[in-house]
Parts: sequence; C-alpha cells; structure tokens
Amino acid sequence: MRDLLPEEAKRLRFIERIARETAILYGYEEVITPVIEYYDLLAAKIGEENRKRMYVFEDLGGRKVALRPEFTASIARLIATKMRTAPKPLRLFSTGSLYRYDEPQFGRYREFWQANFELFGSPMPEADAEIIFLTDDLLKKTGLRDYCFKIGHVGVLRGIFNHEGISEEQQNSIMQLLDKKERAKAIKLLEEANASQKCLDSLKSLIETSGRDSSVIEDMKRIVSDYPSAVKAAVNLNEVLNLLDSGGLEAEILIDAGFARGLEYYTGVIFEVYVPEMNIALGGGGRYDNLVEIFGGGKVPAVGVAIGMDRLSLALEKQGAPMRCDKPIKILVIPVDRSMLGEAFKVASKLRKDGFCVEVESMGRSVSRSLSDADRRGIEFAVVLGPKEMKEGKVVLRNMAKRKQIAIELDKIREEIG
Amino acid sequence: MRDLLPEEAKRLRFIERIARETAILYGYEEVITPVIEYYDLLAAKIGEENRKRMYVFEDLGGRKVALRPEFTASIARLIATKMRTAPKPLRLFSTGSLYRYDEPQFGRYREFWQANFELFGSPMPEADAEIIFLTDDLLKKTGLRDYCFKIGHVGVLRGIFNHEGISEEQQNSIMQLLDKKERAKAIKLLEEANASQKCLDSLKSLIETSGRDSSVIEDMKRIVSDYPSAVKAAVNLNEVLNLLDSGGLEAEILIDAGFARGLEYYTGVIFEVYVPEMNIALGGGGRYDNLVEIFGGGKVPAVGVAIGMDRLSLALEKQGAPMRCDKPIKILVIPVDRSMLGEAFKVASKLRKDGFCVEVESMGRSVSRSLSDADRRGIEFAVVLGPKEMKEGKVVLRNMAKRKQIAIELDKIREEIG
Repeated sequence: MRDLLPEEAKRLRFIERIARETAILYGYEEVITPVIEYYDLLAAKIGEENRKRMYVFEDLGGRKVALRPEFTASIARLIATKMRTAPKPLRLFSTGSLYRYDEPQFGRYREFWQANFELFGSPMPEADAEIIFLTDDLLKKTGLRDYCFKIGHVGVLRGIFNHEGISEEQQNSIMQLLDKKERAKAIKLLEEANASQKCLDSLKSLIETSGRDSSVIEDMKRIVSDYPSAVKAAVNLNEVLNLLDSGGLEAEILIDAGFARGLEYYTGVIFEVYVPEMNIALGGGGRYDNLVEIFGGGKVPAVGVAIGMDRLSLALEKQGAPMRCDKPIKILVIPVDRSMLGEAFKVASKLRKDGFCVEVESMGRSVSRSLSDADRRGIEFAVVLGPKEMKEGKVVLRNMAKRKQIAIELDKIREEIG
Repeated sequence: MRDLLPEEAKRLRFIERIARETAILYGYEEVITPVIEYYDLLAAKIGEENRKRMYVFEDLGGRKVALRPEFTASIARLIATKMRTAPKPLRLFSTGSLYRYDEPQFGRYREFWQANFELFGSPMPEADAEIIFLTDDLLKKTGLRDYCFKIGHVGVLRGIFNHEGISEEQQNSIMQLLDKKERAKAIKLLEEANASQKCLDSLKSLIETSGRDSSVIEDMKRIVSDYPSAVKAAVNLNEVLNLLDSGGLEAEILIDAGFARGLEYYTGVIFEVYVPEMNIALGGGGRYDNLVEIFGGGKVPAVGVAIGMDRLSLALEKQGAPMRCDKPIKILVIPVDRSMLGEAFKVASKLRKDGFCVEVESMGRSVSRSLSDADRRGIEFAVVLGPKEMKEGKVVLRNMAKRKQIAIELDKIREEIG
C-alpha cells in the first residue's frame, strides 16, 4: 500500500477533477458504492486471475466480504436493484480506490484508483463509440499525448468457441491466457479441449491479425467466415470503428483481431489505451450485455470504461505534462506581537475571501524568524501587523522575492498583487 | 454499507469540494493514505470502543491489517516516517472513506466519509484557534446555520487523575464513559480506583460546569485549584477561547469543563460541532502532542479536526441548505438518421467545449421518440441534425420547455442559450 504525498496526491486529484468534469459534460451522474461488497457479487464474472487477488475476509457478522477489485460489478448491482426502474439510457460515473493483492510493480499497486464510466440501456454501436470518445476527451484534457486505442471484439473468439462447443469455463481460461499474451498456452488449451483443426487455425490466424486500417476487418471476416456469430461480431466492430472515424476521433487505433481481456463479463467490443512510454494499459473497457441480468436485473445492455488514474498519472509524469492546477498566491500573516494575534486571524480571513492562500504565523516566532521561514518555504508575500500601521488602517505588505515592503490598506492588497 | 445514488453523491462531493477549497486557502496540502493499515498502528490510541469496531483481517501475506476507522493515526505515521524531515509548521489535509462496524443508525454508517485537517509542529494556542477558525469557515461555506462549538480540555480531567495516581488505563475507561455521557458509571469507576473524596468531588463539579461565557473558566480554575496541571489546562483553554473571540469567531461556543472524547490520543483542547437538528457531532478535533512520538517520530505537537461529511450532508439537508453546484445546461443531439451519427458526435464535442452537458441519442430511436424522452428527463434543449440544414451549415435547435425550434449555425448556439 502506498502513501500519496502532496505532489502525487495533487496529480491524482487533478485527474479526478478532469474525470468529474468530463462526466458532467457527457451527462454521467456520479454514484458512490462501498469499498466492501459481498464476495460472491464481486467474484461472479471478474475472471480467475482477479478472483485469486481479491482481499477477502469475514466481517463481524460472519459474512464473506471483499474489497472491490473493480467498479463494474457494484454499478451493475445498482442497476439490478436500487436503480432498476431508472429510465434508460442511464449514464453513471464513479471514482475511488480499488484493491488487488498483486505483486507491487511499476504502475501496479495493491490500492489503486479508477475513474469509471458506464452507459446502460443501449445495444447500439453509438453507445460503444460514445464511451471511446469520452475516454479520448478525458485523456486529451489531462494533457496526455501519443496514446493509442487497442480495440477488438470478444464476440469474434467466443463466436468460434461457442460454435465448436468449447465450454464457457474453457473459453474463460483461454481468454485469460490471451490477455496475458501467453498465446502458445492458449492454443495448447484449445487443443486439449478437442477443438477442430479449423478452430485452431482460426485462433492462430486471428492472434496474428492486427493493424491500423479497415483491411484488418476484412481479414477477420475471411478468417471466421464459417462462424456466423463471429462474422456478426466483426461487422459490429466495424460499425463502431466507422462511427469513431466519422465522429472525428483523432487518436490512433490499433485493431487487434485476437484481443481478449481478463474480465469475463465482456460480450462485445473491448478496448484498452496505451502510451509508448509504458507497457501496461492506462485504462480499458467494453460492452457487457449480460452482467445486469446475472445480478437479477433483467436484460440491460451496457458498455463502460475504467481509467487507471495512478497509471495515467505516471504516464503524464513520464511525458512531462504540466498537469496545471490553479495555485493561489501564498501569504503569511505575521503579528508583531501576540496582542495582534486576533487581528491576524481577521486579516487572514479577509485575504482568503480574496482568494489568497493564507497562513497565520502559528509557532510564536519573531517577525524576522517567521519571515526567513516564509522565504525558505516559497511563500510569495508576508503581511506584517504592527500597532503603528494598524492605527492608520494599514498593514505592511512584503514581497518576499523582491525583499521590498510597503504600508498598504488591507483592501488594496488584491489590487496590488492579485 | 450504503450506496450513494446521484443526489446523495452530489451532496457529498459538494462538501468535499468545499473542504478541498478550504484546505487550499489555509495552506493545508493534501495527502492520500491507504484505506488498509496495520492493525497495531490503527489500534494504538484509538480507544477501546473504536478498537472493538474495527474491520480487522489478515491479508494474503498473513499480516494483521484493518480498515482505517479514522485518519489521524495514518497521518501521524506519515509525520513519523516519510515526512519526518518536512519543515514545521506542516499543514495536511485528507479526505476519504473510513470504516467502523457500528450498529447502523441515523447519521452513523459502517462506511463513512471525513474531511480531515492536521497542523503539525506548533504547541501554541494559535494553532488550536486556527483549526477551529478553519472548521467554522468550512461549515459556513457549505451553508450550515445555527451550529455550535462544544469545547473543553482533556488536561483538566487528566491533570486531576494524574495527580491522584489513577492509572492511564483507568483514566481511559473513565474518559470513554464520559464521552458516552455515562457519568454515574464514570464516577463509580473513579471510586473503584480508590480516588480521594476531593478527586471525586472535583470530577462531579466539573461535569456539571458548562456555559457560554468566561465565568466557566473561572469556575474550572476554582474547582481544580489544588491540581496545578489541571489549572494550567484551564489557562490554556482560556487562551484559545480569547483568540477565537479576538479573531472574530461568530459561531456560538459552549465551554464544557467535563468534556471528554473517545479517542485516547488527545492531550489538550478538544472540541465538537453540533446543530440543534441532530444529537450527534458533525465533527470534532483537538490537540494530540504525543501521538507522533508514540509512532517513533520524535516530539511533534499537533492539533487537528475531522469533519463528518455524511453527517454534515444530513444536517444541511435537514436545514434545507441549497448546496448549489453549477449545473450546466443539458443538450441532446439527435441525428435524423444513422448516416448523421458521426456528425452528431462532432457537434456534441463542439457543444461540450462551450460548457454544455451534451448527450448524443444512443438508443437508435426516431427523432420524435428521442425528443419525448428528452422532455421526460428534463433536458433543456435538443439539437437535431438533418441533411437539409447541415447543407446550409445549420442545425435545428429546439427549446424543449417552450416547444419552439429554430435553424441556427452551431457557433451561434452559445450566444442563443448560453
């Protein structure tokens, strides 16, 4: 587990703020679900790898609970229960911390942070496209450059496997291996499942098929031409890609015919975001049309994305992005003696109303010691309160960098330095 | 555990935003510590009641960990370790979720949210005063009315008990009972600890002494006149009260001579905030000069406050506070047919740059069905994209409430409705 010290915390909150602004501009309403959920809910469709890495324990009431490893199960639970009657389309945003007992490594933390967007109710390709446009918009606003969307469709592989009678469990294991880029193992597993030669050939061809233009879709269709639902998946992927194109997406796209993700609930288009500087995805998402139904909420098609805020923060740092936050000017208010302390609090309060970041000298130090401390800490201005100036309705305003000071009325400070 | 649906989540984020703005204006830098910490750290000085209510479990590495029931231990750990060399005074802000296995009841949740402010390095009364001014400012900015600070000093009771040789364990038990308003039990426990009659009388007198003016301090001093360190505590409390007065605090103050809080780490002034509408504190804090030392960080005086954001949200709701958030105008972009979908995404992107909240029709519905849905959901404007108007460089802008529409250039929409 990590501590985020001020600089790192500022970056995370910068990203969170942009995510929330993006949510507002796209009409995604925020919901806050608990960090602790029943194990069974979280484990249902998360995939074997993630299941093993959950923080599981019994609460004081003897219930088997876990710390959430992702948002989607919790949000789908809401749609299946408390928000069951909410009119569709329904757009929801969440942000917060998540937990996986991973081996700590670059960009992978046991406590990590995501911004999560889900669009419920639409089976249409424009819903998939919206989620990708939104992701693109959010990333662009943080200042990220050179990112690329990797995109595929789980229906291509699942279409073949279903047609060949491969069990769901076997399919999930194969998808997990593909997600981990263990392609040889995935092919071996498919052999062990007694798949036909055609099926094996299709898988091998698909995982070698990727590229940046629409010829990839044509290749996919040809490879899976004997599997009608896989063809349908390729057509659906193409519809989404066409919308991204006609809608003006500028980011690069890599179509990956054999793309799989670890989460088991996906049913349609899936995608991840990469930057050249890092070999882990900054975020990812896709369509999951069955999860709400599994939780007893009826048939509700859905598509979503989760942005890894820690990873995005790392990527921005690596790219030298400024991540600008408004930094108010800092002022230290120093009373010349303790009798002026009450006045110092009043002056500080007034200056804060003008938008300054104001500290009151709180260590009982002399003016000169307090000033040299302000210097060391990069505070831009000091306001010194002495009885003489106060009688004239003034304070002493000192520019720390210029080492110059003037007597000035409090009301004029904003004009002078604001 | 609760889910916060959009309205409730909005209120919590409104409070969090004001807390963060307050932190910035007072020079408190944000840090983010993990939800999971070692049990021993969290349990050290939290008090018996809270200790029993912690979510404790073993992680996959066999370590005894717990979900944090408060922030202070984690922040003090930072000061004792990673931020050990940071110059003082050091002001830190945190916000996030905390966990106690309480019986759920009004205003008390198993997952709850706090905004937490800590000022490290100053033993001076102005540090205590700053924390209270900050709390007052934050509450006022949320729109809270009629709140009152209850204020006391743990050094008064502890000064007596130490003088009488009451063990720390017994003291803690007595303080816990006083915190729960179980005064008779507290007195009984003191009797069982073989306290002198004078000690018992002093306790009885103190817990009956409270009020709104400085005569309370005089009463306290008289009651504890035989206990030098208790007198010193009363004098210190008076210094803080004088600063609050001369600094212009407008909120009401109730001085409570026998005030105790459940947390065991307090060493000085303590306070809580109440509103007439609720019988639980909205927040509280105080001075704790020994906690950093207990964690191995040397002698670092400290004072802090935690604001219960859920409780504050409830109080604001009860008081009918508006809790205004900026709500952008909502626009639904509807293509007359699917060939216009790409254009719809482009138009939405432009309108969002103008600050509007924009949805693109994502259900594949006809224009008329989409419009009646927009009506039902309170969307203010629709922008309909048809090939005819697009050829003229225009879109159809419909005011949903007025049921009027005009053909307009996209660039003019902001001027028209912004």
